[in-house]
Amino acid sequence: MKAALTLYDLAGAEPDRRFSPYCWRTRLAIAHKGLTVETIPWRFTEKEALAFSGQGKVPVLVDGARTIADSWAIAEYLEDTYPDRPSLFGDGQGRALARFINHWTDSVLHPAIARLILADIHAHLHEKDQDYFRMTRERFFGATLETVCQDREERVLSFRQGLAPLRATLAAQPFLSGDRPAYADYIVFGAFQWARATSPFALLASDDPIAAWRGHMLDAFDQLARQTPGYDHNINGR
Amino acid sequence: MKAALTLYDLAGAEPDRRFSPYCWRTRLAIAHKGLTVETIPWRFTEKEALAFSGQGKVPVLVDGARTIADSWAIAEYLEDTYPDRPSLFGDGQGRALARFINHWTDSVLHPAIARLILADIHAHLHEKDQDYFRMTRERFFGATLETVCQDREERVLSFRQGLAPLRATLAAQPFLSGDRPAYADYIVFGAFQWARATSPFALLASDDPIAAWRGHMLDAFDQLARQTPGYDHNINGR
Repeated sequence: MKAALTLYDLAGAEPDRRFSPYCWRTRLAIAHKGLTVETIPWRFTEKEALAFSGQGKVPVLVDGARTIADSWAIAEYLEDTYPDRPSLFGDGQGRALARFINHWTDSVLHPAIARLILADIHAHLHEKDQDYFRMTRERFFGATLETVCQDREERVLSFRQGLAPLRATLAAQPFLSGDRPAYADYIVFGAFQWARATSPFALLASDDPIAAWRGHMLDAFDQLARQTPGYDHNINGR
Repeated sequence: MKAALTLYDLAGAEPDRRFSPYCWRTRLAIAHKGLTVETIPWRFTEKEALAFSGQGKVPVLVDGARTIADSWAIAEYLEDTYPDRPSLFGDGQGRALARFINHWTDSVLHPAIARLILADIHAHLHEKDQDYFRMTRERFFGATLETVCQDREERVLSFRQGLAPLRATLAAQPFLSGDRPAYADYIVFGAFQWARATSPFALLASDDPIAAWRGHMLDAFDQLARQTPGYDHNINGR
């Protein structure tokens, strides 16, 4: 059966190593809607392959004649185009509050994880992407990838402290979205899946409620997120 | 008309200076539900006045024979007890996501604001509360109130950077909860109202989208939050 949707999805050296946190948001949102998707492995430097979308980053979703870029725009598109499928947001307030979690993840969680795994990501990139990645990320962080990631064994403790709002929420309810996972969970899980796909480093202690939630997210949709190569021992003691 | 509800509400030296961020969550939640409340000014050291609630902190809500402590528990109580009134959360996913914002506010926003205004809070306390406040807060922060708050003119810039998720959300939609304010807004606004009631220090730049939202929150429910004494010039340029 031909898949309904096509997704351009960031890949590492191996075509099946899919590690973009933003693309994982979209992968899980598509699964949540019960839709099928064909994913096309894409590398950072293949800008011309995305020219049709009017910009140069993934995820890019193609749905028939429609092309949508940006993970949040794609989530809103899926929700509004397939309203009879399971909802990603619940209602208007759910969508509005998920936007805060989206921005928290982008501006707090991602930079904090990047400071622990950037050098590992580089090691998993396709050769043709490595110079591009090093140049753009070293400019952003103002230091070499290796310098950014040094002393991570000590720094991970303050990283874990910074996850306090996430931990307290997941200690009180099974998922960020409540009893069942929905888009807010996919946003945050994408960050941990990014690390899982690229780094052996243990972000979480094994007794952390976030680690239990991460396990449930890996199991969701017939273990969809386990299908990409990754380090399942990047949680202490697992 | 006798008010339906009674709320024990933290007060400063003047009985009408109500400055608890947690009590403001509850005040606004009660207004959102269209209920009336009689507030009883309470000071930190009046532990015996709350003995009937089985604990020693405000807010404490009394609704007929029911007594509820803790702002989150009170919000859930109001939502579940008055389901026909305007909803605080929208649906189950809205409530679940508001819990994350509750924990973000408690563990990130409040400590960050405290490091800018603790000494000002102390100056506005009832005399009988000042030693208690100094002792408990200095123990928590491991420094004198004055040391915690020093160099705040320089540090406020990184404080404002830390508000990035809030700012990006409020640049995209009028309220955290969407087109209209709801409980997630009351949670975060409580923190800014805490500062407004106790400190002349400018937490926000006047062109910050968060400042515009704060103004709308001060206007809500017939300017309910403006009825307590406070510093309206604690936003630059206002």
